[in-house]
Amino acid sequence: MKIFFIGDIVGRAGRQILKDAFKYLDLRSTYDFIIANAENAAGGFGITNKVLDELLQLDIDCLTMGNHTFDKKEGEQVLLHNKVIRPANLPPNVVGSGYGIFNSRAGKVAVVNLLGRIFMQPVDCPFRTFDLLYSEIKKETNIIVVDFHAEATSEKVALGHYLDGRASAVIGTHTHVPTADLKILPNKTAYLTDVGMTGSTAGVIGFKKDPIIQKFLTYIPKKFEVEVENPQLQAVSIDIDESGRARSIERVFYPEEAAFEGELLDND
Amino acid sequence: MKIFFIGDIVGRAGRQILKDAFKYLDLRSTYDFIIANAENAAGGFGITNKVLDELLQLDIDCLTMGNHTFDKKEGEQVLLHNKVIRPANLPPNVVGSGYGIFNSRAGKVAVVNLLGRIFMQPVDCPFRTFDLLYSEIKKETNIIVVDFHAEATSEKVALGHYLDGRASAVIGTHTHVPTADLKILPNKTAYLTDVGMTGSTAGVIGFKKDPIIQKFLTYIPKKFEVEVENPQLQAVSIDIDESGRARSIERVFYPEEAAFEGELLDND
Amino acid sequence: MKIFFIGDIVGRAGRQILKDAFKYLDLRSTYDFIIANAENAAGGFGITNKVLDELLQLDIDCLTMGNHTFDKKEGEQVLLHNKVIRPANLPPNVVGSGYGIFNSRAGKVAVVNLLGRIFMQPVDCPFRTFDLLYSEIKKETNIIVVDFHAEATSEKVALGHYLDGRASAVIGTHTHVPTADLKILPNKTAYLTDVGMTGSTAGVIGFKKDPIIQKFLTYIPKKFEVEVENPQLQAVSIDIDESGRARSIERVFYPEEAAFEGELLDND
Amino acid sequence: MKIFFIGDIVGRAGRQILKDAFKYLDLRSTYDFIIANAENAAGGFGITNKVLDELLQLDIDCLTMGNHTFDKKEGEQVLLHNKVIRPANLPPNVVGSGYGIFNSRAGKVAVVNLLGRIFMQPVDCPFRTFDLLYSEIKKETNIIVVDFHAEATSEKVALGHYLDGRASAVIGTHTHVPTADLKILPNKTAYLTDVGMTGSTAGVIGFKKDPIIQKFLTYIPKKFEVEVENPQLQAVSIDIDESGRARSIERVFYPEEAAFEGELLDND
Ligand SMILES: [Fe+2]
Ligand SMILES: [Fe+2]
Ligand SMILES: [Fe+2]
Ligand SMILES: [Fe+2]
Ligand SMILES: [Fe+2]
Ligand SMILES: [Fe+2]
Ligand SMILES: [Fe+2]
Ligand SMILES: [Fe+2]
Repeated sequence: MKIFFIGDIVGRAGRQILKDAFKYLDLRSTYDFIIANAENAAGGFGITNKVLDELLQLDIDCLTMGNHTFDKKEGEQVLLHNKVIRPANLPPNVVGSGYGIFNSRAGKVAVVNLLGRIFMQPVDCPFRTFDLLYSEIKKETNIIVVDFHAEATSEKVALGHYLDGRASAVIGTHTHVPTADLKILPNKTAYLTDVGMTGSTAGVIGFKKDPIIQKFLTYIPKKFEVEVENPQLQAVSIDIDESGRARSIERVFYPEEAAFEGELLDND
Repeated sequence: MKIFFIGDIVGRAGRQILKDAFKYLDLRSTYDFIIANAENAAGGFGITNKVLDELLQLDIDCLTMGNHTFDKKEGEQVLLHNKVIRPANLPPNVVGSGYGIFNSRAGKVAVVNLLGRIFMQPVDCPFRTFDLLYSEIKKETNIIVVDFHAEATSEKVALGHYLDGRASAVIGTHTHVPTADLKILPNKTAYLTDVGMTGSTAGVIGFKKDPIIQKFLTYIPKKFEVEVENPQLQAVSIDIDESGRARSIERVFYPEEAAFEGELLDND
Repeated sequence: MKIFFIGDIVGRAGRQILKDAFKYLDLRSTYDFIIANAENAAGGFGITNKVLDELLQLDIDCLTMGNHTFDKKEGEQVLLHNKVIRPANLPPNVVGSGYGIFNSRAGKVAVVNLLGRIFMQPVDCPFRTFDLLYSEIKKETNIIVVDFHAEATSEKVALGHYLDGRASAVIGTHTHVPTADLKILPNKTAYLTDVGMTGSTAGVIGFKKDPIIQKFLTYIPKKFEVEVENPQLQAVSIDIDESGRARSIERVFYPEEAAFEGELLDND
Repeated sequence: MKIFFIGDIVGRAGRQILKDAFKYLDLRSTYDFIIANAENAAGGFGITNKVLDELLQLDIDCLTMGNHTFDKKEGEQVLLHNKVIRPANLPPNVVGSGYGIFNSRAGKVAVVNLLGRIFMQPVDCPFRTFDLLYSEIKKETNIIVVDFHAEATSEKVALGHYLDGRASAVIGTHTHVPTADLKILPNKTAYLTDVGMTGSTAGVIGFKKDPIIQKFLTYIPKKFEVEVENPQLQAVSIDIDESGRARSIERVFYPEEAAFEGELLDND
């Protein structure tokens, strides 16, 4: 099964480059299943019904979330949609589902969304949450993709190893900066610490740089606005066999070299 | 000036692959100036006099440090060596120097070491510390390389923009995972969020994976030991003109594709 | 000099009980100088011009702030008033002043506002900030009262000792829970880890309890509203001699035993 | 049932004043059940078998722990003793028990130890952990005392309210500074944000002040040593009826006014 996994969509710049990528990369005919992290899709913070509709029109199969799930009040309502999943290690009884099992033209695929806890809010243990879900999911499908929305590299790499041989892919999100450590772990789990984001590459992790720099210099809160210049889609293409083992994982940047405010060099 | 900047050297696995890289990549004849972050060089935590000697025998020009500077008691003594610099935004009167101005065959070069503060200890402001040092350094040389040892991507990207046009290069360290966002900013500062590390790629950020996973599962402290399998040097090569502007920045992994425990794919 | 120091005023419940206390305790005739922390005075978060006016009508001599200084946009404007001081260890060039020297019927008194950094945002070092201010202030007056707005007990007690013999009093604020460690340190600095707050004692640190409990149970953000039941003023009375040494420090609760939702026992 | 609850015993100064208090306050004849937090009993960090023996010779009925449970390697072994409980919201399969049900001359009493998560490590949810234990414990006894070992006042007060009417008493530990908010909540749960500690009052939360101040000034790690001057036992006396409702809660300091380095004023 060919899966396309898209990093955090940040605001309208992110949604626009995503539309372009669907068209120019012909994503729908190339991939059996398309996942995108949407926690920043609405103005950089959270998601709304309107933005959900816009994303679903692109024919994305599954939207994952993260620590910004509830930034917009409509967030709780958006989670009722069966293509949207929220972190599975939120407390029980929270609205929505922490994983989904979806049909694709190449068979069933499960997507699990997990939050890290290091330098983040103290949710339930992502390691043990996966253990619990795994036995249920495994009855339905061998193909399991995990969006690990986390900050600390130690926690992300450790979870990758912990899930090696059980998950088909463990793809990190949240830092908005793509990492260069694509690999297939010994037991055939595709792994990447962070896939990056889908939005402007000209500012600071998707937002205009001046308010963020001013915040660092003054500690006076500033309104953070989505930057729109030089957008890029940052994603990975993963090929998984029927037993759930990863055959390959490759990075996809669109456009390949964002004109940035400067130049992008040697990242391909 | 051709500069080689090496990510956090982690324990003996890191020191060994570094030696190999010096030899096989012929670093000394290729580069005018070689910088390495050594905060994890001794057993993964800090630095000792013995390890310092070992590193200096490789003819490294400057060693930078980070949050692990004082993990070993000898750390304070090591900082007296004029090739070793520690974060400049530690409190005043701390032993050692926060920057150095060095002679190379291609002229003078300044190296500044700064610590981030987001998700880290509350040291002095890295933004303002650079401002203070800049006026002094600029009298001596146009070529200024900053090792920004920090956790949060927002703080790292923001400092990159803040120093754009003043520093020749802002290279992130600390997370031990290389990022794929090499770029030259609009005012010609070379930028990378994290250069990665120099050590084993088989465990968790340079350490054996089992104790780290057990720590996440039990919260009982475990002794972390340096992993030695499949070491890799992670570095960047930066070319800077006489005015201090970056001409290019390129990633260097040695070996190019670490045999990992699995396989490394498409990171080059 | 008899000084009255009032803990964080939380919303209208806090402002109302403060008014009552001024009247029934006859604060203005009893005390030479009255200080109150106002970082939560407007709806529990920050301060507005209107709330400032309301507080100044009570004839308070100095208002201190904390981490909520800029929660309301008007915060920056409020800091222009000469009776309002904000933390002195915010970055330079931030609007307002970090200390004030005021005239009272018993002579000059300096008030310094400092923020802690443990478990809080990384501002400048409160220890060194005091060192810098002390030499200036000492020329003007021996009587120096410090509002140390901080979270961690270790940092608060350590700063108390560090300022012992230089400050006349180091009074903690921010946790909204009064501590029972009133003391005069060996070099005659009056010390209290936290003076508490001025507002409702029926909820959670001044706010309605249900949204806060729900937040802990669900991690879904809730709107926090100021609680109004069973308000209490929590303060200290400090007597300082002309050389700046503390003669005594005593706790003042008004009413002495808040009817709470339950009963207050043996705290006097 | 008359219960005596003793704050974190810090090192030998703490153990010595505890022995004195047992003798001079005649604790064993006054109280039906005696609980002490022992997470700092061995040299200020953790617990050893030898220290356990020393404490048990005093005839303490139950020792609770906290974030320092495993500081000493013997910690895991100490947890096998049936009078020692460790936080109940550690991951499952961790050695030891998170609560105990004990016989006393006045009947059965349950003690539950919980860790907070705000500004602390991300363990399991203390709110939900209590819910799970409650149904089991309630079958055995109505008298339930909770040691909530936590940092943030908001989390502590919120848990107090959440357990109001289910726990007989919720007593905070960990900050080492006693708070002045003793109360009985509306549904008859005795509550105190922090009981304080049992150890030297002359330093910084039980430790010598100079290394801690130096650490704040330099960020260079220092060895923290237990202070021994002017020790004090900080505790509460709680009276609980047969239905599990608190009749009263009172603070006990021994000696009543520690000679401190200075003087203790008006804390009684
Ligand atoms: Fe995001
Ligand atoms: Fe996120
Ligand atoms: Fe490092
Ligand atoms: Fe580091
Ligand atoms: Fe406050
Ligand atoms: Fe505050
Ligand atoms: Fe403790
Ligand atoms: Fe503790």
